[in-house]
Amino acid sequence: MHVTGYVSEAVIKRLPGYYRHLRELESGGIFQISSQELGKRMGLTASQIRQDINSFGGFGRQGCGYSVQELKKHIMSIMGIDKKHRMIIIGAGNIGCAVARYPSFTREGFQTIAIFDKDNAKIGLQVNEITVKALDELDDFVRHNRVDIAVFALPANGAQAMLDQMLSLGIKTIWNFAPIDLKTPKDVVIVNVHLSDSLHILSYKMTHTAHE
Amino acid sequence: MHVTGYVSEAVIKRLPGYYRHLRELESGGIFQISSQELGKRMGLTASQIRQDINSFGGFGRQGCGYSVQELKKHIMSIMGIDKKHRMIIIGAGNIGCAVARYPSFTREGFQTIAIFDKDNAKIGLQVNEITVKALDELDDFVRHNRVDIAVFALPANGAQAMLDQMLSLGIKTIWNFAPIDLKTPKDVVIVNVHLSDSLHILSYKMTHTAHE
Repeated sequence: MHVTGYVSEAVIKRLPGYYRHLRELESGGIFQISSQELGKRMGLTASQIRQDINSFGGFGRQGCGYSVQELKKHIMSIMGIDKKHRMIIIGAGNIGCAVARYPSFTREGFQTIAIFDKDNAKIGLQVNEITVKALDELDDFVRHNRVDIAVFALPANGAQAMLDQMLSLGIKTIWNFAPIDLKTPKDVVIVNVHLSDSLHILSYKMTHTAHE
Repeated sequence: MHVTGYVSEAVIKRLPGYYRHLRELESGGIFQISSQELGKRMGLTASQIRQDINSFGGFGRQGCGYSVQELKKHIMSIMGIDKKHRMIIIGAGNIGCAVARYPSFTREGFQTIAIFDKDNAKIGLQVNEITVKALDELDDFVRHNRVDIAVFALPANGAQAMLDQMLSLGIKTIWNFAPIDLKTPKDVVIVNVHLSDSLHILSYKMTHTAHE
């Protein structure tokens, strides 16, 4: 689904939250919600909610609130999570295996189709019914299978070379858990999950909240 | 370490990146760096670098650049990662175990001292030399051990009740992996790692980059 207007980075970052809250509302049997109520749940003002929803295409009728189901469907479509995505995971360590086993990814259409590792001890292991393959098989696998997303669950020092290998294979969407800022061409889509960074921010906030 | 001036949320989010890059520079044998060079590595302008560094206390001498080691030490102190932090992990599933086994956390002073689960099948298992305890033992454990951080690696539906239990035990710093926006009092420090949200943002960006 294409968004016609300009959607700011801040709104993009809020989209998954909208989806989560709407899903919760839906499973709680709530069919309609006002911008006030949705705002209260999400820690936003009613006006921010209306502005956000307007920015991704206009929706809802004044005075009636939003249809939870329709708005959720709309947001799923905007995020492209109404489609299937085929992922490969590079690295069968703790993070790689946790991603492979994360139940909601498969349920939401993010299907892990292969896991690769260079460690002989890991090759052949079963992770969530997928057999870990040798990294040597990567090129061949990608040439014969459609891959939408590569999940980088490998150490920082091998990540940049792995990115170059991905680009040579035509894979341009990377979910990166390696603790490094990868240098990427402009048309590459990369989202980082830097766990150490997150923990350091927690430490910063703890340090400066406790003492002030 | 206290920061005297106001440090914006944007600067706080950049602090771990500074730390990462300075650590890389240090291990690459680089002792001095200019704001230009550091900016180039971090994708920031030299003026942003100078402004950031000024905002956390002033540092470096005009024309000489920054001492990598001193700046790193300074930033570690600001983030409070020059101290030891004692963590407990709630949930011995894939995420909880991945956090317990993440090698750099222990190295950087974030020590997991206990892991709890309510699943009888997991109680007694060894995760990185720590025995998984029953959730029933949580209160007693916290009363007899200093705990700085609770890591929430449990499903969304149990997370709010667990937060209330933490507050009753005096634990006010939460690293939350549960896919839910927890309601917290003002003095609670919480940082979320919402993996699904991150993957959904990747999906959004992929959807809107590939087609435009």
